[in-house]
Amino acid sequence: METLRVGMLGAGTVGSGVARILLEEPDRIVRRCGRRIELTRAVVRDPLKARDEVFSRVPVSGNPRDVLDAAEVDVVLELMGGLEPARTLVRSALQAGKDVVTANKALLCEHGEELFSAAREAGRTIAFEAAVAGGVPIIHVLGQSMAANQITAIEAIINGTSNFILTDMFRNDAAYDDAVRKAQAMGYAEADPSMDVEGTDAAQKLTLLTLLAFGTRTRPEQFQVQGINTLELADLKYADELGYAVKLLATAKLLEGGLEMHTQPTLIRQGRPLATVEGANNMIALTGDVVGQTWFSGMGAGQMATASAVVSDLIDVAVGRAQLTFPHLDVWGAHAPVPLQPAEQAFRRYYLRFNVEDRPHVIADITDILGRNSISLASVIQHEAPEPDDVPSGAAPIVPLVIMTHRTTEGQLRRASAELDALNCLRRPKVCLPVSD
Amino acid sequence: METLRVGMLGAGTVGSGVARILLEEPDRIVRRCGRRIELTRAVVRDPLKARDEVFSRVPVSGNPRDVLDAAEVDVVLELMGGLEPARTLVRSALQAGKDVVTANKALLCEHGEELFSAAREAGRTIAFEAAVAGGVPIIHVLGQSMAANQITAIEAIINGTSNFILTDMFRNDAAYDDAVRKAQAMGYAEADPSMDVEGTDAAQKLTLLTLLAFGTRTRPEQFQVQGINTLELADLKYADELGYAVKLLATAKLLEGGLEMHTQPTLIRQGRPLATVEGANNMIALTGDVVGQTWFSGMGAGQMATASAVVSDLIDVAVGRAQLTFPHLDVWGAHAPVPLQPAEQAFRRYYLRFNVEDRPHVIADITDILGRNSISLASVIQHEAPEPDDVPSGAAPIVPLVIMTHRTTEGQLRRASAELDALNCLRRPKVCLPVSD
Repeated sequence: METLRVGMLGAGTVGSGVARILLEEPDRIVRRCGRRIELTRAVVRDPLKARDEVFSRVPVSGNPRDVLDAAEVDVVLELMGGLEPARTLVRSALQAGKDVVTANKALLCEHGEELFSAAREAGRTIAFEAAVAGGVPIIHVLGQSMAANQITAIEAIINGTSNFILTDMFRNDAAYDDAVRKAQAMGYAEADPSMDVEGTDAAQKLTLLTLLAFGTRTRPEQFQVQGINTLELADLKYADELGYAVKLLATAKLLEGGLEMHTQPTLIRQGRPLATVEGANNMIALTGDVVGQTWFSGMGAGQMATASAVVSDLIDVAVGRAQLTFPHLDVWGAHAPVPLQPAEQAFRRYYLRFNVEDRPHVIADITDILGRNSISLASVIQHEAPEPDDVPSGAAPIVPLVIMTHRTTEGQLRRASAELDALNCLRRPKVCLPVSD
Repeated sequence: METLRVGMLGAGTVGSGVARILLEEPDRIVRRCGRRIELTRAVVRDPLKARDEVFSRVPVSGNPRDVLDAAEVDVVLELMGGLEPARTLVRSALQAGKDVVTANKALLCEHGEELFSAAREAGRTIAFEAAVAGGVPIIHVLGQSMAANQITAIEAIINGTSNFILTDMFRNDAAYDDAVRKAQAMGYAEADPSMDVEGTDAAQKLTLLTLLAFGTRTRPEQFQVQGINTLELADLKYADELGYAVKLLATAKLLEGGLEMHTQPTLIRQGRPLATVEGANNMIALTGDVVGQTWFSGMGAGQMATASAVVSDLIDVAVGRAQLTFPHLDVWGAHAPVPLQPAEQAFRRYYLRFNVEDRPHVIADITDILGRNSISLASVIQHEAPEPDDVPSGAAPIVPLVIMTHRTTEGQLRRASAELDALNCLRRPKVCLPVSD
């Protein structure tokens, strides 16, 4: 079979990892797909900028048309990231009759509908294993291995940065800010970590997983997204005391009322596989109506884990598998997609932490509000406050009060929360995290 | 596209699960592969025997030729188990121009070389996702998702029966025999559980994984296979005290000297994902030279988990993916397969438990033998023995002595073991388990 010729858009960290595999392991590639895969050229924003020496062996230019218009490019590998010009270039590549491999979850989350349709019209394929959970082949799993199943639940730790920060806070008694700086120093977090720590990155990945699993097109604005940037070490410690680990969990569950979907720091009972995920690892727990519960775990990001996924996509294109799989993915909105359940109907347990004045009737005031909103309590932690002698005279000491509720709806919790905000015995922050049992 | 027509050999538990999915979820199947999959007939040993009522909707006969010679069968689904007549029938099916889907790991372990070659000669495909780890799509993962990688290590819990028994012993302080009876009562163990508890089943599955990962053809007789049937609750408790869980671990590691390969009850450090696998679940930890460590977990057996894997294979055949993947699997012995490392060269830590007479110089005798064989000790547990008053006069009390060694070779350990057996202060059993750190 003829060589598969790849044109690369963007030649950064992942790109150099991909180039390295293709250039250094040609025999392995031929063994896996029966043909060579050749990186014929790369396009970058600034061809004069210093880059990985592997690109000394690949023609590099600054003009995307060198890839899009080249007859000697069969597959366009989009590794630029961001929305534009990635969107325009991917569309052009498809229209020029080229298959596309991409690691760009933001692009597919924002413009997937348009790009998937453009691919179908052009009779081409988009492969995107690397867009979610890097080294964990969850797109393969959803698109092929679970094909006998209706997926009924996804619970996923899919932001390695957040999980690294939470692990560091808990293991090393680190404050949030210190853990972020450490993650940045180690290359796990960007200079501006907001996409990761605010939950947006995980939410974007969740929209791709739910599209594949349920055919449901969503955007992060349509469901509850909360990041780890409001967490304190105290919450991780209280959760541990209660028998839980706190993880940024992206969740989608198929319920009678529709799809329950949210991305939030969540208490997960210790001993469950999701609670054991440490550092920058990812884990996706999938439940299928036939297979039951399954778990998939590995490095969710990083140069080589992502490059592994990209190259597996290139091999799938070279073999012809990707072209067979793509038309049957549930990404076309054709099969009566499951609607989103209104956020207020989510029915869960919650962890609440209040900073309260240590004076009579405070617990009564709080539990009265919860009780009137039909929220019953599973457990309460209030450790001893410092003796009054140790705090400024006159002021009541401020002490943390932690409450685990029984199951209640998000709507009831929000009503109670508004009433609680009006209590003058409460100090910020008020923390509210869901529980996954 | 035309309907894919399936003929089933064997209509037992898994077969009825498969039949149920195909008959009850036809729309799902069409969505996933763009064509119908029809169960056109089933062949059983005794057509008069009572079976699942789903087979009232499928023509059932007692003659395999009804499937093998039928023009209206495209795929033969082999679910009979055992070596013969499965081997002959699969070969006939391939020669008759039919693709084969099978869940029969024993067949592929014993006769894979012959059958894979027969498939290649006939230009047909054998798909066998269900042969290893049921609901965990490890064959897909090795054959496709990890295609950019050279696998460097496999550590796998792939016998659900053994893991169920070990979990029950540890969690419920159960003796081995009681846990086996419970596993039988709950359907996790056969009336004769020897294939599972002696390690043969896990070893057979390991040979399939190593064939795919390293191209190495092996048989369980060629590497160390030890089952859980020699374990006692005491060993699980001592391991726990030392910070380890005991699991039946199937291991293959790519080392300079070749492939280190064994299936043994193994101490796994607590906190590692493999140590958390409970009940009848399976987990395969794969390390790839590009992707790093990955973990795949789910139910390894049982009607529906296995049926899920079988139906995903049928869908792969219906789409045409399986036919593209099969020729590129490393099952042909074509690519200079990695040789097995001699068992004596395995270099590991070991857990040793002796029952010794509680009298002077016993520890000195044992540690002298270990030391002369260059085995150094990492830790020793000997709890207090009952006071001499409590044992029959004259006899020294028998007490357990537990030793964790530093790394040593299996060869050194075996030499020491032979010397230890000659000591007259030791009573049976003498337990020796490797450690995976």
